[in-house]
Amino acid sequence: MASTQQASELPDTPTLPNTHSGIPTRLLDKARRAKTLIWQGRSVPASQIPRTEPALPQGVSRTTFNTAIVELTQQLGAANVELNDKPAVDNGWYMEHPNTHDMMHVTDEDALVASAAVYPSSTAEVQLIVRWANQYRIPIFPISMGRNLGYGGAAPRVRGSVVVDLGKRMSNILNIDPDDYTCLLEPGVSFYALYEAIKAKGYDHMWVDTPDLGGGSVIGNTLDRGVGYTPYGDHWATHAGLEVVLPTGEIIRTGMGALPGSNTWQAFPYGFGPVQDGLFSQSNFGIVTKMGMTLMPNPGGHESFMYAFERDSDLAPLIEIIRPLRICNVLENVAQVRSAVQTIAVQGRPRTDFFTGSGAIPQEVIDKEVSKLPCGKCAWLYYGMSYGPAYIRQYKLDAIDKEFRKIPGARKVDPQTIPRDNYFWSRDQIAAGVPDLEELLWCNWVPNGSHIAFSPVSPIRGKDAKQLMELARRRHTEHKIDLFPAFCVGLREMHLIVEIVFDKTKPEARKAAMDCMRGMVDDAAKLGYGEYRTHLALMDQVAGTYNWNDNALMKLNERLKDALDPQGILAPGKSGIWPKRYRARGWEMGVGDEGVEGKGVEPEAGSVRL
Amino acid sequence: MASTQQASELPDTPTLPNTHSGIPTRLLDKARRAKTLIWQGRSVPASQIPRTEPALPQGVSRTTFNTAIVELTQQLGAANVELNDKPAVDNGWYMEHPNTHDMMHVTDEDALVASAAVYPSSTAEVQLIVRWANQYRIPIFPISMGRNLGYGGAAPRVRGSVVVDLGKRMSNILNIDPDDYTCLLEPGVSFYALYEAIKAKGYDHMWVDTPDLGGGSVIGNTLDRGVGYTPYGDHWATHAGLEVVLPTGEIIRTGMGALPGSNTWQAFPYGFGPVQDGLFSQSNFGIVTKMGMTLMPNPGGHESFMYAFERDSDLAPLIEIIRPLRICNVLENVAQVRSAVQTIAVQGRPRTDFFTGSGAIPQEVIDKEVSKLPCGKCAWLYYGMSYGPAYIRQYKLDAIDKEFRKIPGARKVDPQTIPRDNYFWSRDQIAAGVPDLEELLWCNWVPNGSHIAFSPVSPIRGKDAKQLMELARRRHTEHKIDLFPAFCVGLREMHLIVEIVFDKTKPEARKAAMDCMRGMVDDAAKLGYGEYRTHLALMDQVAGTYNWNDNALMKLNERLKDALDPQGILAPGKSGIWPKRYRARGWEMGVGDEGVEGKGVEPEAGSVRL
Repeated sequence: MASTQQASELPDTPTLPNTHSGIPTRLLDKARRAKTLIWQGRSVPASQIPRTEPALPQGVSRTTFNTAIVELTQQLGAANVELNDKPAVDNGWYMEHPNTHDMMHVTDEDALVASAAVYPSSTAEVQLIVRWANQYRIPIFPISMGRNLGYGGAAPRVRGSVVVDLGKRMSNILNIDPDDYTCLLEPGVSFYALYEAIKAKGYDHMWVDTPDLGGGSVIGNTLDRGVGYTPYGDHWATHAGLEVVLPTGEIIRTGMGALPGSNTWQAFPYGFGPVQDGLFSQSNFGIVTKMGMTLMPNPGGHESFMYAFERDSDLAPLIEIIRPLRICNVLENVAQVRSAVQTIAVQGRPRTDFFTGSGAIPQEVIDKEVSKLPCGKCAWLYYGMSYGPAYIRQYKLDAIDKEFRKIPGARKVDPQTIPRDNYFWSRDQIAAGVPDLEELLWCNWVPNGSHIAFSPVSPIRGKDAKQLMELARRRHTEHKIDLFPAFCVGLREMHLIVEIVFDKTKPEARKAAMDCMRGMVDDAAKLGYGEYRTHLALMDQVAGTYNWNDNALMKLNERLKDALDPQGILAPGKSGIWPKRYRARGWEMGVGDEGVEGKGVEPEAGSVRL
Repeated sequence: MASTQQASELPDTPTLPNTHSGIPTRLLDKARRAKTLIWQGRSVPASQIPRTEPALPQGVSRTTFNTAIVELTQQLGAANVELNDKPAVDNGWYMEHPNTHDMMHVTDEDALVASAAVYPSSTAEVQLIVRWANQYRIPIFPISMGRNLGYGGAAPRVRGSVVVDLGKRMSNILNIDPDDYTCLLEPGVSFYALYEAIKAKGYDHMWVDTPDLGGGSVIGNTLDRGVGYTPYGDHWATHAGLEVVLPTGEIIRTGMGALPGSNTWQAFPYGFGPVQDGLFSQSNFGIVTKMGMTLMPNPGGHESFMYAFERDSDLAPLIEIIRPLRICNVLENVAQVRSAVQTIAVQGRPRTDFFTGSGAIPQEVIDKEVSKLPCGKCAWLYYGMSYGPAYIRQYKLDAIDKEFRKIPGARKVDPQTIPRDNYFWSRDQIAAGVPDLEELLWCNWVPNGSHIAFSPVSPIRGKDAKQLMELARRRHTEHKIDLFPAFCVGLREMHLIVEIVFDKTKPEARKAAMDCMRGMVDDAAKLGYGEYRTHLALMDQVAGTYNWNDNALMKLNERLKDALDPQGILAPGKSGIWPKRYRARGWEMGVGDEGVEGKGVEPEAGSVRL
């Protein structure tokens, strides 16, 4: 495979605290390895956009755009308004992603692109940008860090939007309260950065709940309702207090933050009267500039465990066993049930190391390869952790063991037998609140590997797990894609997460991925399952499945959008919510229509008196 | 004291399941006792409103009103539209409260009254009522059960509103899921009813989290962000899924309920896109007709404990000790720190049994009386519960004991020494998810006893506890009111709950209560404390304290109100949110202006084409 650059010559990943989006130095070796594997897997240069002029949003003439940009540059400074008018720079991996487009594009690379990126340094500058956008009717798309990979990364939904990159200059940890176990953050604070700051202060009594990878913005991840793997897993449920710039430029603080001089903004999640926070989650109703987050108390001990289950058919009874244990908090963190094939892929090796034929990788190859790993031959692996002092853990571990062993052939894998570089220890770190960097290694499964996620919400039932697996397998077989499924059991529901890994440089691979996704979304909706989150390109379709009572909820969302963003400038199309200017003009993407743009907007851009 | 009716002749309290708002038969004896004590404490008949014609809302002529009522009666049936044109019937206690006015009125009894009550039997009939209200611009005020006592009961904020009494005919438990530990409820389901239904099905593995009293609607309590005393205490945080009739008549379902045929409406609290649920909490943006609620798993054991602390000054160090134990979940339920005087009062005996002088009850009387109780002489009592199997409880109880005993003189009161009729056992029931009926007995402290609550949110800090106590004591002394404080520690914050008990038949007692409340609200706001909930008469004042950045949050609320309720018909003034028709016309109540009405509305009533 032709590498465009010798892996040995790769420049090092930027580090914290020099770069807000950098890697902690403790993870530099993992970053080197991950980066090298990606570069080795590249068959062509990472980016193919030979841009010379910014892509403009519909309804905005180049003259108006240029005038507007000159004005914004005067206000923010030349360094803080960056036109997307150069050939795309794409270091092409998680830690060094572009903010100009979706690095893991499932559409054409040139489809979902920004015209410019701007870098506010304060809430007041975010206000200024929002007012500017209203004045010129230019769509803006806020990102915190832009690491929403698999769901669109930093890309805007409307081509030519101006990306408001909040993280670059607003990356302060405004407060860490060691008595209340809370913190107050700006959008550019990653899980890595928060963890390192807490450790640097010697606050060993507080944990950060972290997702599979730690590079994302705590705010961005929480607003998209991401989850982590300690008992505090539901980030949205554990946040407390927002500062938001509304689409018309006003600044609000929610909860107790609305009381001047409040002493409980991060300690109490509500205030008085309606709770507005939810309006700003997975939406385009405001730009969050500060967020309070609670921190988990150190539980006084923890212990990872792993069980292997031999047969594919063990899944259904396992899920039935998990349900009561999870609801009763005997299984204390998000329960991960991962497939054998993922365990093979997360080593970071390409599929061609195991199989060079065409079509999906055969089961016997999977069986053979997984047998070589520490987990031994299995169809499913359970990764879990028990918390608390040893004898309290033992009580729970005994209960779990007794239940899991009801499945014939269930094996507990002794952690002592697992080498330190095995993925098990990455999960161990994550479940102990230590942000890590391994998860995406399975992207190296194919050259120029990218991923897109199918994430339906399901009851915790064996029959649902089976039904979802059948549905996913059928569509994967149809499109000749290897199936990477994992079940994440939240508390009373589980998400099936299916990651489709595809070669982003191959249009036919992208099309297969999209067709497979669209098929699964529709199949799932017919059975009562809906996605909890999705890629930009699927938002219209997914939103369309939440159409109870003649689309009543979307109609409410549109009313709210019109009331809060009358000019329709903020992230048009996010979560399927289109402002009035765009509605009924064919902007929606869906089965049979993968065009990202519609037929213009009305009214067009121009200076509007506010 | 003159009783208007011999206690022995009192008719029995209606029971479940005959009456949706009834008492479970297991609590009939407690109801008899409570009712008898109240009747014995009455010095005058309970109600003094000699009404012959309904009080009409401003801007609605009697002709228009009558026309409108005739039309509504034709649609809902005569039995389901009830004019408030008779002398007020007021059985005057928690289990048999009126739906025509605030039974515990802190204003004039005739101030906050309804013109009529209507009884829909379905979501479709709620839609019909909402459309009718829009057509005639008649304000409507939804109640679930109307037991929001201390905060306004069933009374509407705008005099002459039509109360939509949802509970009477919409009191079905639509589902109880023994696998997911969830339920789906209508507004008329009380905590009593839900508990009894779960027990009747033999579902001993599921608990209901219950507030101090179990007669309230689960939906109503949750929407007002009430709390309970098991580890699931935060009702709002543990609900999942709403069905809502919007003020313009559309029906939405939130979360997964927006997906037709969804199988996770009660299992997953979010859906796709923005989370709208918060808009319908403590607000006037919609009428909730169904709500999903999660149920707590039976923890496999539980054990109440009580500690007594000798000195008033023990409060601050105790709160400091509680904070980390609570955040770390060693103290697992809402931590209640109650004052000695409340412990005396909750016996249900009048203050005159202990003291017949004027002014606040002297400290030496309190000391003497509390010394006679099982807790012995003390200033503060801690009521708590530990959950789980015995040896896991012991671990936690030992940790608590070690910490609490750092306070000199701290005593653990042996439950074996506490008689079964002591209030301790009521708290034991409540903390074990068994709805009870004792809490309000302290209302008998004065004749015709009513109460109103001051409930500021505070950090869990000794200095804050001290500061709030000083503030409350100063205002209570000023107004010669006995101080009944209790601290409820949520997780990272505590609410001080001060209950002012007053004789509602005495205008000067009502005025003292209101003046004391208004003083405390303002004093608290200056120090950064805000109320989590308040009485109808204080909503404008409390909302006014959440005025950060030139009242930005209220301006947002008003924008939302105008977008969702353009005719301004739904619960005008609730949580201080006034529709456009009422704004800037003096409807706000506040210091120096206790008039409940403003100068008209614009436009006035009349048939509006929707």
